[in-house]
Amino acid sequence: MPTLWSQRYAQRTQRMQGSPIRELIQVTDRASLISFAGEFPASDTFPLTHVQDACQRVLAEHGSHALQHSPTAGYRPLREMIARHTARYGLTVAPDNILITTGSQQALDLIGKVFLNPGDRVLVEQPTHVGALQAWHAYQAEYVGIPVDDDGMQTDAVEAALRAGPKLLYALPNFQNPTGVTLSATRRMQLVTLADRYGVPIVEDDPYGQLRYEGEHLPALAALDGHLRAQNGIAYNGHVLYVSTFSKVLAPGLRLGWIIAPEEVMQRLVQAKQGVDLHTSTLLQMVAYEVACGGFLDQHVRDLRVIYRERRDAMLTALDHYFPPEVHWTYPQGGLFIWATLPQPLDATDVLHAALAAHVAFVPGMAFFLRDEGRHTMRLSFSHATPEYIHEGIRRLGEVLVRALQSSGPHTLNPEGTRGVSGRSG
Amino acid sequence: MPTLWSQRYAQRTQRMQGSPIRELIQVTDRASLISFAGEFPASDTFPLTHVQDACQRVLAEHGSHALQHSPTAGYRPLREMIARHTARYGLTVAPDNILITTGSQQALDLIGKVFLNPGDRVLVEQPTHVGALQAWHAYQAEYVGIPVDDDGMQTDAVEAALRAGPKLLYALPNFQNPTGVTLSATRRMQLVTLADRYGVPIVEDDPYGQLRYEGEHLPALAALDGHLRAQNGIAYNGHVLYVSTFSKVLAPGLRLGWIIAPEEVMQRLVQAKQGVDLHTSTLLQMVAYEVACGGFLDQHVRDLRVIYRERRDAMLTALDHYFPPEVHWTYPQGGLFIWATLPQPLDATDVLHAALAAHVAFVPGMAFFLRDEGRHTMRLSFSHATPEYIHEGIRRLGEVLVRALQSSGPHTLNPEGTRGVSGRSG
Repeated sequence: MPTLWSQRYAQRTQRMQGSPIRELIQVTDRASLISFAGEFPASDTFPLTHVQDACQRVLAEHGSHALQHSPTAGYRPLREMIARHTARYGLTVAPDNILITTGSQQALDLIGKVFLNPGDRVLVEQPTHVGALQAWHAYQAEYVGIPVDDDGMQTDAVEAALRAGPKLLYALPNFQNPTGVTLSATRRMQLVTLADRYGVPIVEDDPYGQLRYEGEHLPALAALDGHLRAQNGIAYNGHVLYVSTFSKVLAPGLRLGWIIAPEEVMQRLVQAKQGVDLHTSTLLQMVAYEVACGGFLDQHVRDLRVIYRERRDAMLTALDHYFPPEVHWTYPQGGLFIWATLPQPLDATDVLHAALAAHVAFVPGMAFFLRDEGRHTMRLSFSHATPEYIHEGIRRLGEVLVRALQSSGPHTLNPEGTRGVSGRSG
Repeated sequence: MPTLWSQRYAQRTQRMQGSPIRELIQVTDRASLISFAGEFPASDTFPLTHVQDACQRVLAEHGSHALQHSPTAGYRPLREMIARHTARYGLTVAPDNILITTGSQQALDLIGKVFLNPGDRVLVEQPTHVGALQAWHAYQAEYVGIPVDDDGMQTDAVEAALRAGPKLLYALPNFQNPTGVTLSATRRMQLVTLADRYGVPIVEDDPYGQLRYEGEHLPALAALDGHLRAQNGIAYNGHVLYVSTFSKVLAPGLRLGWIIAPEEVMQRLVQAKQGVDLHTSTLLQMVAYEVACGGFLDQHVRDLRVIYRERRDAMLTALDHYFPPEVHWTYPQGGLFIWATLPQPLDATDVLHAALAAHVAFVPGMAFFLRDEGRHTMRLSFSHATPEYIHEGIRRLGEVLVRALQSSGPHTLNPEGTRGVSGRSG
């Protein structure tokens, strides 16, 4: 029998779904388990005493201000600091180009609110970050998938998709979630040039850019786009909306992210943010500024690179050692994720059930696809466990895979499962 | 020349506007000014040392947890505490009926996201809280205004409006923003009975309910509704979504609010919140819990009542003394606002310009109406200034009004301007 409520939900809520990953995390977040499932940064890296000191200082020196309402666009010194930081990576923006958001998830929601009408198409990598799909499902977006390989989004598939007139193109160029791959320098230039030619704005999501463990930093799409437009002055006026976050380099429990946008778009974003939460916590913006200023955050990011690089290397070494030769995986130059592709007969969801029985968890790759694809893929996050636990977890997972292969009989590499992200073989 | 951006904004953003009140506040938030314009609680009431101690304790004892991601629905002990607190006021709910939001503004946004399709009608008090209109404009809601008098929403006008099939009814029963009036006990029962008869859910917004300075607490609409349904067990299953916030009783810079909803609706709200910001800051939820538990918040609310009651009384006394007899105003039993109605020839926006020249500010009542109405009304907030400044500010404003009346020649009381909220004459 329909209730009064069930007759009243908006059409858009028919399309919203709980995140299968978050639900899985809730199931698997148990002490005895070695989890490669989470998207969380490592709790043991949080700079607790610095946050503690910053809370004290902010409340002692600016307490009334920190606990009061504040402007929607964000705390000015924090926006200025982000502008200075961004300039170091070749992207010149003014503080007025920066909107502080309640985590980068809110940045995606606000972009959806400002740009997406029901039925609007968005080009997305396949596989892609589920949080973006979740945010934009609520605006009844349609998606067009662009396959990903070891050099990121396959730009030769982009032009045809751009011709169909999408509203936005969504890209995660650095150490992509879920595959760990990085968009190559050549493809960055191609992507920006193509998007410019077809007049389609890019949403560049860059939560992991600071977490590079080897190789050279590649310019942001927003920086290349600004270059194309031969900017004068400092106000950013390109066609890329750049999104990032303090969640990976500081702590996700603070819920602090930001959007870089041309001032014209900023006005709309600020109006939208007024309607959704007035402003992000004044106290936490001031605390993040206190923690970051004076150079501590730079040092902390250097420390994080050492910690995560060690975990990545531990996982790569263990994969080489314990995974059957039929499994392939990516080699991430940064970020938190490795993407593995299983041979034909193995379904990652079946493997997960066996893995949970062996007290080890990961996310089946299907979760990151628009349709029923990627059944033979898995995302392995190396952020959350120490090298010892990573070693032990991959050992257990290797045993599960060997057993599954033995019981499945003769097999071949699955061309669908690899989806171009063939990675390097173990 | 249209830019690439201007061709791409969603239809809904044509309807979003910056809040004229927030813009005014930015203009008027200067040191030399006595402002009755703000909606802000008084900064000098924030329990700084308690927040400081709570930050220390939470980070020292549960730091890794406080800085990590957490479940979307909210920090369990905080939800349990809110459930216990709510029970004291006759509304029995389970923690699972409670969603923690990033301020009550987010609660309104999430309700819009889950329930409102373009063109859906919402019944709202006239005048009403602008934040709700801002949140729901983004979902292309239409509004039907119900006039307000000294006993709150005029329930005899509600039935006809309910017959037209609105999606929701939005009510602010206690010390309404902007008028300061309270929905009477009789009308509460009428409203709940009518909404039940026509099957229209109520959104009950109650930011000020704790700030009552005289008279008896009146039951929440959600409590009356639960009573009507003869509840068994503790899970709330009524047709009222109850929204409240820590902004007025603790501090708005924390951005912490909540929604009480039936579990069926909670599922949708949680899914929507996952898409908009994943969860509210773990740290701040734990800090609010630490500050509130052990009875401190109860004591703090008692202190706030003394402070704000003194300010309300100072404003009422000054109004009696300095305002011309042609001006009428409401007598609020709690909350932060007094609503004044000027005689016919005076336009509150003109008065504001003269007032700003005399270094005193308020919000013209027009800002709180759907259409071009309420030109002769003004909202006076007594929260932000001490009794001495309130006295001086009302003295200045009284002079401005006397001068304006003298220069306007003979005049009569304006029946449109009073809009039923005639209040008590000075």
